[in-house]
Amino acid sequence: MTRIVYLNGDYLPEAEAKISIFDRGFLMADGVYEVTSVLDGKLIDFEGHAIRLARSLRELEIASPMPDDRILEMHRELVRLNDIDQGMIYLQITRGNPGDRSFMFPDAAVPSTIVAFTQNVPNLADAPAARTGFKVISIPDLRWDRVDIKTIQLLYPSMGKMLAKKAGCDDSWFVQDGAVTEGTSNNAYIVKGNRIITRHLSSDILHGITRAAVLRFAAEAQYVVEERAFTIAEAQDADEAFSTAASIFVMPVVEIDGKAVGSGKPGPVAGRLRDIYLEEMRKAAI
Amino acid sequence: MTRIVYLNGDYLPEAEAKISIFDRGFLMADGVYEVTSVLDGKLIDFEGHAIRLARSLRELEIASPMPDDRILEMHRELVRLNDIDQGMIYLQITRGNPGDRSFMFPDAAVPSTIVAFTQNVPNLADAPAARTGFKVISIPDLRWDRVDIKTIQLLYPSMGKMLAKKAGCDDSWFVQDGAVTEGTSNNAYIVKGNRIITRHLSSDILHGITRAAVLRFAAEAQYVVEERAFTIAEAQDADEAFSTAASIFVMPVVEIDGKAVGSGKPGPVAGRLRDIYLEEMRKAAI
Repeated sequence: MTRIVYLNGDYLPEAEAKISIFDRGFLMADGVYEVTSVLDGKLIDFEGHAIRLARSLRELEIASPMPDDRILEMHRELVRLNDIDQGMIYLQITRGNPGDRSFMFPDAAVPSTIVAFTQNVPNLADAPAARTGFKVISIPDLRWDRVDIKTIQLLYPSMGKMLAKKAGCDDSWFVQDGAVTEGTSNNAYIVKGNRIITRHLSSDILHGITRAAVLRFAAEAQYVVEERAFTIAEAQDADEAFSTAASIFVMPVVEIDGKAVGSGKPGPVAGRLRDIYLEEMRKAAI
Repeated sequence: MTRIVYLNGDYLPEAEAKISIFDRGFLMADGVYEVTSVLDGKLIDFEGHAIRLARSLRELEIASPMPDDRILEMHRELVRLNDIDQGMIYLQITRGNPGDRSFMFPDAAVPSTIVAFTQNVPNLADAPAARTGFKVISIPDLRWDRVDIKTIQLLYPSMGKMLAKKAGCDDSWFVQDGAVTEGTSNNAYIVKGNRIITRHLSSDILHGITRAAVLRFAAEAQYVVEERAFTIAEAQDADEAFSTAASIFVMPVVEIDGKAVGSGKPGPVAGRLRDIYLEEMRKAAI
């Protein structure tokens, strides 16, 4: 089955989906994105992603190409056309194609580019990695200073994933001024007794949609949520660690820089939060 | 006349030059670029740009799609096809199109994407802006920490140009820890008596090809070159200020954050260095 993708109003076979070399997304990384998970053919936390998308666009003064209800409709159409039961929908909006290259933003009449495509992951909820956990390494956080805006400037996170792979690990956690900011494409947490610790919101981390939901469920489940910076040493000494993102839900972290966290196996708190998250989000999926 | 551009081996009308939505340059800003100026139909400092391009590719482990002599040949063909007397050639190389999105680098078998196009600027050497000078504002340097690699992560420099425009100015100079790093797309200098001061090379600035040539010519013309950090206050108190880049050569800066530099008009040192640069580089153009 050929994947059908969405590009500026058209549903196309993926091989036909092409953009101009002058698109600002290609020449200047001038664009933003969202990834929404699909379970049972339904969208997980679509509203959260739509709200964050609108914020990213506003921060960069990129015109929204369509209202949320049409984005929702388009997402559902992609799920239907590609027969997705479990997987992700990737959505990207750029400042469009002004027909030439300039550091100046194009005239407001230049329409934004909007592209979306599915990724089919049949075992997304029952991911094997969730049973063994992630091994992570720490690397310096070299990213720009506004990572709260979900831009497509993903070169360094991609390099971070490759550094982890070369070290025989699954992901990198970024460290800035001695404290963990987040993972390459996820928020980072540690567990100490009844406390769940994750970095406070600022322009230094992505304001995770999955993060917000998991912290809400954690509080409801009587955990104490501490939003503050923590060090790698503190994480290595924690009872558990985990990461969250739309595509991995709650992912146990069992090793940091070669040191086992807790038992060195996925811990009960991460497991419980993953179960609660999946159950609640499946109920609320649309 | 329709502009003819280069894309992965083909010379195409610009409207037909399209890349896959899965290109790593479009989804992850995973690419590098160079801009080479054209004067009298010849390339300015092609070798310098080729050397820096090779370094950028090496730093990111992107395969070079073709040897320098073929890139040179392609540049000359673009000049010929588009009848360019004065202007620029923009060249971009990305990690290519793996056919899907992943933070992992694609298999080495995935070819890099190479695209190049001309920009026709008939008065590039005799630019009106060089007679009036740039007015600049200072803004915080929020870019990532490896701007010595010439990546396409240009969103913040582009935002900086727009902030300058909104302030009625021509460019922004970035400030990091109290000192100027560089302009949005150029290196920054001040002049004090016989001394020309510009920030030392590090991962905090682009290693300008025009910068290297201008500093060489400055030393030959008996100026004292000081490579060190300077503050905005020091720049405002200097005799002159200027910026250099391939597309602006040596550009006088006459105002910084609303304060006139020196006489508030383009100064003699910047003018002299611009003249020497143009004369010498025209002689050496290929």
